[in-house]
Amino acid sequence: MSSENQQGKLPNLASEAVLVKSEPVPDNFVEVLGIDYSKDSAYNMKAVDLIDSMRTMGFQASSVASACDIINKMREWRGKHIDELPEHERTGEFDDQGYQKTTIFLGYTSNLISSGLRDTLRYLVQHKLVSGIVASAGGIEEDLIKCLAPTYMGDFALPGKGLRDKGMNRIGNLLVPNDNYCKFEEWIVPVLDKVLEEQEESMKKLGSEGLNADSDAIWTPSRLIDRLGKEINDESSVLYWAHKNNIPIFCPALTDGSIGDMLFFHTFKASPQRFRLDIVSDIRKINSMSMEATRAGMIILGGGLIKHHICNACLMRNGADYAVYINTGQEFDGSDAGARPDEAVSWGKIKSDAKQVKVYADVSVVFPLIVAATFAAQRPN
Amino acid sequence: MSSENQQGKLPNLASEAVLVKSEPVPDNFVEVLGIDYSKDSAYNMKAVDLIDSMRTMGFQASSVASACDIINKMREWRGKHIDELPEHERTGEFDDQGYQKTTIFLGYTSNLISSGLRDTLRYLVQHKLVSGIVASAGGIEEDLIKCLAPTYMGDFALPGKGLRDKGMNRIGNLLVPNDNYCKFEEWIVPVLDKVLEEQEESMKKLGSEGLNADSDAIWTPSRLIDRLGKEINDESSVLYWAHKNNIPIFCPALTDGSIGDMLFFHTFKASPQRFRLDIVSDIRKINSMSMEATRAGMIILGGGLIKHHICNACLMRNGADYAVYINTGQEFDGSDAGARPDEAVSWGKIKSDAKQVKVYADVSVVFPLIVAATFAAQRPN
Amino acid sequence: MSSENQQGKLPNLASEAVLVKSEPVPDNFVEVLGIDYSKDSAYNMKAVDLIDSMRTMGFQASSVASACDIINKMREWRGKHIDELPEHERTGEFDDQGYQKTTIFLGYTSNLISSGLRDTLRYLVQHKLVSGIVASAGGIEEDLIKCLAPTYMGDFALPGKGLRDKGMNRIGNLLVPNDNYCKFEEWIVPVLDKVLEEQEESMKKLGSEGLNADSDAIWTPSRLIDRLGKEINDESSVLYWAHKNNIPIFCPALTDGSIGDMLFFHTFKASPQRFRLDIVSDIRKINSMSMEATRAGMIILGGGLIKHHICNACLMRNGADYAVYINTGQEFDGSDAGARPDEAVSWGKIKSDAKQVKVYADVSVVFPLIVAATFAAQRPN
Amino acid sequence: MSSENQQGKLPNLASEAVLVKSEPVPDNFVEVLGIDYSKDSAYNMKAVDLIDSMRTMGFQASSVASACDIINKMREWRGKHIDELPEHERTGEFDDQGYQKTTIFLGYTSNLISSGLRDTLRYLVQHKLVSGIVASAGGIEEDLIKCLAPTYMGDFALPGKGLRDKGMNRIGNLLVPNDNYCKFEEWIVPVLDKVLEEQEESMKKLGSEGLNADSDAIWTPSRLIDRLGKEINDESSVLYWAHKNNIPIFCPALTDGSIGDMLFFHTFKASPQRFRLDIVSDIRKINSMSMEATRAGMIILGGGLIKHHICNACLMRNGADYAVYINTGQEFDGSDAGARPDEAVSWGKIKSDAKQVKVYADVSVVFPLIVAATFAAQRPN
Repeated sequence: MSSENQQGKLPNLASEAVLVKSEPVPDNFVEVLGIDYSKDSAYNMKAVDLIDSMRTMGFQASSVASACDIINKMREWRGKHIDELPEHERTGEFDDQGYQKTTIFLGYTSNLISSGLRDTLRYLVQHKLVSGIVASAGGIEEDLIKCLAPTYMGDFALPGKGLRDKGMNRIGNLLVPNDNYCKFEEWIVPVLDKVLEEQEESMKKLGSEGLNADSDAIWTPSRLIDRLGKEINDESSVLYWAHKNNIPIFCPALTDGSIGDMLFFHTFKASPQRFRLDIVSDIRKINSMSMEATRAGMIILGGGLIKHHICNACLMRNGADYAVYINTGQEFDGSDAGARPDEAVSWGKIKSDAKQVKVYADVSVVFPLIVAATFAAQRPN
Repeated sequence: MSSENQQGKLPNLASEAVLVKSEPVPDNFVEVLGIDYSKDSAYNMKAVDLIDSMRTMGFQASSVASACDIINKMREWRGKHIDELPEHERTGEFDDQGYQKTTIFLGYTSNLISSGLRDTLRYLVQHKLVSGIVASAGGIEEDLIKCLAPTYMGDFALPGKGLRDKGMNRIGNLLVPNDNYCKFEEWIVPVLDKVLEEQEESMKKLGSEGLNADSDAIWTPSRLIDRLGKEINDESSVLYWAHKNNIPIFCPALTDGSIGDMLFFHTFKASPQRFRLDIVSDIRKINSMSMEATRAGMIILGGGLIKHHICNACLMRNGADYAVYINTGQEFDGSDAGARPDEAVSWGKIKSDAKQVKVYADVSVVFPLIVAATFAAQRPN
Repeated sequence: MSSENQQGKLPNLASEAVLVKSEPVPDNFVEVLGIDYSKDSAYNMKAVDLIDSMRTMGFQASSVASACDIINKMREWRGKHIDELPEHERTGEFDDQGYQKTTIFLGYTSNLISSGLRDTLRYLVQHKLVSGIVASAGGIEEDLIKCLAPTYMGDFALPGKGLRDKGMNRIGNLLVPNDNYCKFEEWIVPVLDKVLEEQEESMKKLGSEGLNADSDAIWTPSRLIDRLGKEINDESSVLYWAHKNNIPIFCPALTDGSIGDMLFFHTFKASPQRFRLDIVSDIRKINSMSMEATRAGMIILGGGLIKHHICNACLMRNGADYAVYINTGQEFDGSDAGARPDEAVSWGKIKSDAKQVKVYADVSVVFPLIVAATFAAQRPN
Repeated sequence: MSSENQQGKLPNLASEAVLVKSEPVPDNFVEVLGIDYSKDSAYNMKAVDLIDSMRTMGFQASSVASACDIINKMREWRGKHIDELPEHERTGEFDDQGYQKTTIFLGYTSNLISSGLRDTLRYLVQHKLVSGIVASAGGIEEDLIKCLAPTYMGDFALPGKGLRDKGMNRIGNLLVPNDNYCKFEEWIVPVLDKVLEEQEESMKKLGSEGLNADSDAIWTPSRLIDRLGKEINDESSVLYWAHKNNIPIFCPALTDGSIGDMLFFHTFKASPQRFRLDIVSDIRKINSMSMEATRAGMIILGGGLIKHHICNACLMRNGADYAVYINTGQEFDGSDAGARPDEAVSWGKIKSDAKQVKVYADVSVVFPLIVAATFAAQRPN
């Protein structure tokens, strides 16, 4: 019997399904609300007020506000005074007054250094607002290269062949003239000569014990990065400030980029000697930082190695206490890049009661806003 | 011969590939730069200053700044004075002084009205900052429902079964108690009774000419939406202000949601009479708006029908002059939702010399910022 | 105290976190396994064997296999024999032997008809493998247009301006010559003239009762689509077979595309008469189909209106029994397009105990494979 | 003047925009076509026939077919006979008859080894169908761990806390009992003891020259991986066959995962000795492979380091000749993971005339199908 014959009587099935009664709304429910344009603060708006309004907007607006809240919490947390602690517990970070504070791991991918976010990342390092960094290889070399020559605005749609013919390398909608890499080669070769020389001197001194744990013969990626920061000696550089402020930058696959090209070339120049980069001592170093931290926070910008490496280090302490992920990865393909913080909880990389959020967004869109409403809400001393 | 035997000589192949010389950088190239933290404006930052810095950051930061620039351009454009125009050209939008201005089409998906962005969308309509709107069905009814009862913050991971048992409907990380829809039914049924009565009165008057072009017997989605805006009579409502300000809201698939449920129920109640909603007259209306516009701009928040419908209307004028897309769709699956503005150029829906940009982001993250730096940079008169 | 001073003693913290003991694995756990290349069936592989291996591969491979399982389940389900049923329960679908079977709703977006998937969609309709369809406007007109002239392979990167200059419209990596739309206009105008004439004749007969529920004066999108399928009279067409097999195709926003352009043009030609398309009777029709179904299954290819419309119809029966979503949408932006099936469970659109899966993939990649392993595993009678 | 007053005359503007004439379609245009269900091969379909039909389907279906074509081309290419070549050109890969063939680099992320794709990857290595591999750390250890205990099917939505409490680690919709890692520790510690012993013996022999280019004291990730493959001695293992077939597996960040945890623990056990892993010699090795290749092909499954590392190696030869990317990354965030092949062309990592394609899909969905239609179309000898 067709419904057209049922004129006049609405089947109960439909009305009951559509008009289900709901349970009373619990008192702690938060109403969805946006910007209140009756207020003056809604015009010529400040980042902090914008974030405040985004908290109850829903979707990723709420996640961005949540990221700010978590960053503020990880920054504000204070534990015991150093004087109250037995010697062997005097590890991790302390504030100027001597109180324990959160060890903050910052991870970023190469492209963020290529973008204008480099200035924001440098700001965080310059003012010691983070404790340790994990970057991909490009995140190291592009910082140095920008001290030698600029990166330019381009377009996602510029055809590759024409660019290669002109010696223009494209990174999304940015362009890096290949001359920049030539300049980088000129700059770094003497540094590599120098560190090889130091390696060889130490080896001469240490002989067959040159590989031992306390040997200074063997360089690691983080040690080379620190040296590059010292050598570049440029206040626009993340690496420079990391060196100045003794903030380690880890990059286990440091050979995966232009520095790798230069190290590769250098193997020919240096032969039969060879500069070595050991990654075992760096895993010892980052894991130790994690274990020694009183509390640990993660700010992870992008995916891939830089994300996993910080999470894995935090497993050594049975999980981070705070976690902010910002990236565009999705979980459906089972990639670590796209995994939600809750996947890391299953591994013990984030504590089950940690404050955590993932913001699904291109970092360049949200991180300037997030920093404006947190780390840079006030001018640092 | 293995490379390990080539000690000492770096193959030219590699060095030539890596150290390609680049052509000189053209004078008009723009350097990638971020926030200048030496300036006071970098602290407790304002949205306009943030956007200013994002322009040269690259990636989607630049796209967001570009969206602001385009919106400002579409708002600022002025053509001839109405007195200079022959009668038949006195179409489209004029400013208070009588100068031609851009007809701005705003499109948004249902979820944005469910979110806190509703307040921002209402702000635009309240102050006549847009000329016409295309929304999906939920974008109509959720605006009305929010006048009757609130929507609440939830979580993306809340299990569906438990929510259904409690009568809580989930929209992403938002929750709508099903009672809200019961209240909506109570509110809308008398309105539907009324409009059916009006339809029947007109039909009695017009008889067999009731379907004619100039008939007032036949309702369209945009006309019903206008009426709902009038009936709701609530200053928090987008529909209320659209009615007040004579801004048409188009929604060809108005039956695809709760209003559709109510219209469905009403077919039983009204039988043998039936309220009708004609979509042909609405396509006539929106296409005419497009053709009569002196310049046309599109601000499209989300994908699907609301995106295509505005674009298609702009084909009638051989292309929009300004276009801002904001959504998370990707082009690789050939969907219209994910299509870049340049695909619309091939169709004549956007002019080839139009100012256009697509921002790849959840609207909730970027649109509050964009509005803060454009429409709400100053308090409207 | 730095870790470098802790030589020799591994902190318990780390080893305990890393080497947590796990609970015994439950007996019903399924091991992750891939293709067994020791078997002959692993070579020159058949779709059904591939799907069989994908079931335990994980990630979306498993989801694809799950989609096949659910489709097979919805196809195979049988209920009572029609003779056992009281008259008023003899609704929904029955198989050739008279047993109740699942009412299957198929939804697809426009681009899939533009792609080579049209042949697969037509196959499903030709052999009555689905019960009802929801499509977007392009999903209607592109099927007709392909009967008049071909669509061609293109490239995602072809610049829009050059294409517009040549009259080539781009849909992802496909190209449609604009002449195809000119041919479509020539074909459809006489049909529109005809249906307007029929509308006017009925109105003359019915007078002021022309809008009544049982009036044949008023056309709806589904009725016009059925007529277009009859008129095109081409075995390559989805619409032709839908007409032949009495499978309704719903498209509430039928004006949102080329047919809308033609209807718009026709308003000028037909004036003062006007052809009308009522969407209220179509919501009555699709909701009734849902309520009359003994069991309901959804196969939803893409997002937007076509997804929501089928889900909403299934709310009228308190939820679908089977649901397969295939699209590339993500939930993080709160869009309905990206919502997981579990969000629909909260609304009562999918039953909480339904068989359901979402496959995160471009439909063109997985649907041919899925159909090969289900609907087309054997040649239909 | 409103359009409603323009009854009867359709503005030329609209009809001219909509009915633009197109240029004649070039002869070489390819029509979009799908599966021909009139053919027997459309039923109980084979992977090769499916791929054949997908070639003209459009969207990613076409990209998948293109990936198969490119893989077939890279496999089939043959150059000169080794006897025709001067000694120093006898590098790269040769077939059994002595003809030059393509050096194929395969990259994959960790999760693919966790999934059932491991069997497919092993198949490629077992039958020497690829020349070299780049994997992330998990892509090494999970292969070994699967020889010790199974990975299980799970669900993306399983809450992290409950899993951690049970010692179940989640990878997307897979589960790995933490006991597997305990077993792995038991297995690997003796191997690490052994390789440390070998390092120390060599150092004793070589003394201060232990770091030299030709030193066998210093291990690299690829050498340790080869040893692990030998030690595991299990035919289900990718590493086992890579060892057997002398296919190097590169993993510069080998410490970024469970092996890193074990190496970290081992630093305490071994102190004051320390096992070292040098990444400089591995960059020398992979870059040399690239330069020595007559032709180079890339098959990159996933993003991040494994993608960049192969591309960067191919820069050393001024670009790969063939490239197949399969991943879900998008370019809009400027990430290397999401970069299209054409971005690599700008860098000289892919030749401008190379055969290249990116398939936007979860690897698990498309790679089994692609292998079925290429590498496993016939049973290997």
